[in-house]
Amino acid sequence: MTAPASVGTVAPKSLHFREPLPLASGATIADYSLMVETYGELNAARSNAVLVCHALNASHHVAGVYQDAPKNVGWWDNMVGPGKPVDTRRFFVVGVNNLGSCFGSTGPMSTDPATGRPYGARFPVVTVEDWVDAQARLADALGIERFAAVMGGSLGGMQALSWAIRHPARIGHCVAIATTPKLSAQNIAFNDVARSAIQSDPDFHGGDYYAHGVKPRRGLRVARMIGHITYLSGDDMAEKFGRALRGKADDADYAFGYGVEFEVESYLRYQGEKFSEYFDANTYLLITRALDYFDPAKSCGGDLARALAPARARFLLASFSTDWRFSPARSREIVTALIRNDRDVTYAEIDAPHGHDAFLLDDPRYHRALAAYFDTIATEVGQ
Amino acid sequence: MTAPASVGTVAPKSLHFREPLPLASGATIADYSLMVETYGELNAARSNAVLVCHALNASHHVAGVYQDAPKNVGWWDNMVGPGKPVDTRRFFVVGVNNLGSCFGSTGPMSTDPATGRPYGARFPVVTVEDWVDAQARLADALGIERFAAVMGGSLGGMQALSWAIRHPARIGHCVAIATTPKLSAQNIAFNDVARSAIQSDPDFHGGDYYAHGVKPRRGLRVARMIGHITYLSGDDMAEKFGRALRGKADDADYAFGYGVEFEVESYLRYQGEKFSEYFDANTYLLITRALDYFDPAKSCGGDLARALAPARARFLLASFSTDWRFSPARSREIVTALIRNDRDVTYAEIDAPHGHDAFLLDDPRYHRALAAYFDTIATEVGQ
Repeated sequence: MTAPASVGTVAPKSLHFREPLPLASGATIADYSLMVETYGELNAARSNAVLVCHALNASHHVAGVYQDAPKNVGWWDNMVGPGKPVDTRRFFVVGVNNLGSCFGSTGPMSTDPATGRPYGARFPVVTVEDWVDAQARLADALGIERFAAVMGGSLGGMQALSWAIRHPARIGHCVAIATTPKLSAQNIAFNDVARSAIQSDPDFHGGDYYAHGVKPRRGLRVARMIGHITYLSGDDMAEKFGRALRGKADDADYAFGYGVEFEVESYLRYQGEKFSEYFDANTYLLITRALDYFDPAKSCGGDLARALAPARARFLLASFSTDWRFSPARSREIVTALIRNDRDVTYAEIDAPHGHDAFLLDDPRYHRALAAYFDTIATEVGQ
Repeated sequence: MTAPASVGTVAPKSLHFREPLPLASGATIADYSLMVETYGELNAARSNAVLVCHALNASHHVAGVYQDAPKNVGWWDNMVGPGKPVDTRRFFVVGVNNLGSCFGSTGPMSTDPATGRPYGARFPVVTVEDWVDAQARLADALGIERFAAVMGGSLGGMQALSWAIRHPARIGHCVAIATTPKLSAQNIAFNDVARSAIQSDPDFHGGDYYAHGVKPRRGLRVARMIGHITYLSGDDMAEKFGRALRGKADDADYAFGYGVEFEVESYLRYQGEKFSEYFDANTYLLITRALDYFDPAKSCGGDLARALAPARARFLLASFSTDWRFSPARSREIVTALIRNDRDVTYAEIDAPHGHDAFLLDDPRYHRALAAYFDTIATEVGQ
């Protein structure tokens, strides 16, 4: 066994789709592009493909680095690569930036062919189901009839679940981590505060800020700060920051002002600032709304087991003990509904201190569980 | 026994203090006014006074209504009144609006005698300890040498604790509900996001918005929405709102937009709107900072028992099972520190669904515990 390595230098590509995509809202996207990265080799049987679905602020750049940006490491590089849980010597891994996101796929920043100007507020609301349908067309374009696995954490896990429901013949395994069958009122509330902060920023201009040459950065900063608090556990924040004062001893006197004084304030404001530089505000609205709307049981009278009945995949669910955003109880709801359908389901509830963000970290027990599961899949598909 | 009644029509009064008040920051307030309400009668021995301390957004208006505003019921009217847990037939109850608040006491909106303009950003940062010292002077003015009890919930509980430490001879009982010995990193983080929203509102003008004839209402709305989420439990929000759509059946189709659609959004935005009408943004910064700074153990090397050693009062602590802002574990830290000092402490951990806000509600078990405790106090002071 060699030590896990990086997939190395990678290059994204843009795939264009000309067939109009009908959306859950009733609207249609006439034509669109998706940014894609792939790692590893598709085998001759085309049976070893794994689709990785991203969450709110990530993209197609799952693993590796870029030639011209050697520090821009993919967001799940610890999960995907040679010798890593999703081993790119055995699997052909596909990362895709979803429709409406802001990393090169068609979204609110793109030019609306109907007007010649950025879509802005006119970009249609898209749902998890819409993303999954667009991903299925991507699979067609890549010559993949069936994914060995579709996987993701958080919102990515919702896409994996939706794949199992919408395209049951095209997914072997559904790997859904730190996810939920639907947002709670509290989850929606946090999303709405973030949206309010963006929408009430005078630089938002009803979503058409591109034309004004500005960005609603104040709103984005606040949105990200709120989000960040919900991604970490209270214990994790206590451990990382406690009540430490920035650049001062713990028993130093307070500054008696309203500027950044505690370490945790400095950290959050830095995260907000960074995010406001690279993320698009309309995409923030769009993706949080897709989170709010995800609820496969809605059309089945609230019965999740009935919603999951079409699924034929086998399932790996994983959750983290200190995740208060999508707690283990939410994953257990999915497990219970799958068992009611006699589905084959593996469930790992991992005792980890890092809250919701744990799905992105390389906790050894978590990664060992994933590695073992993907090892079985690889064997199944002859890799 | 008669059914609990209201204290009826009450009238606030403003008391002016001419002796300069030295503050924890090193600054001094030259002179100041405090808004005060009282209910019941001070007995001849002056032994039956109870001071009620308010939390972030409340005031001196603890109970009853005003002649000209019969719907403006005091914020703790269910706790204070004839036949209520703090029975105004037996106790003389004092409500006071703290220094820096925006309900008539001297604060950022007041005229700075040095400039003839509102203090705005120049109003000094005040602490829980400063409030308690100002309250002690109020007691002097009212002829109260010793309070039978000082009580409060949340930030009000911090004031009660601080009374026990700073003025041990002047407090018989310390009643501290749903409180904490110090904010956690997560608590500070939520406060800081709220402050960021206010400070980054273009109408904030560095705190001197009065001169511009505007209010940073966008920031205040977001701040209140964030706060509100932390006051309710997740279960409570699920119970109250779930995923209900405003004005639509649960299985109705989504609106596919970014406006108010879920009931929980409507509720939060309404709360934010209402708050932004009546609350002052500088006061929001000031009071959240006082929360951040409260940490009586800080000057004792982090040893809470040592910080509480001067206390001579008897203590009632109460917490609520679903309060994730100041959880029962935080109250237990105080109880443990008091026991280490051989203090007389009663602790009630109440199984209640309503999160942090439970301290304001009339849960029967909670109110029975408080009523029994205050009955003992009343007997002690001969009432």
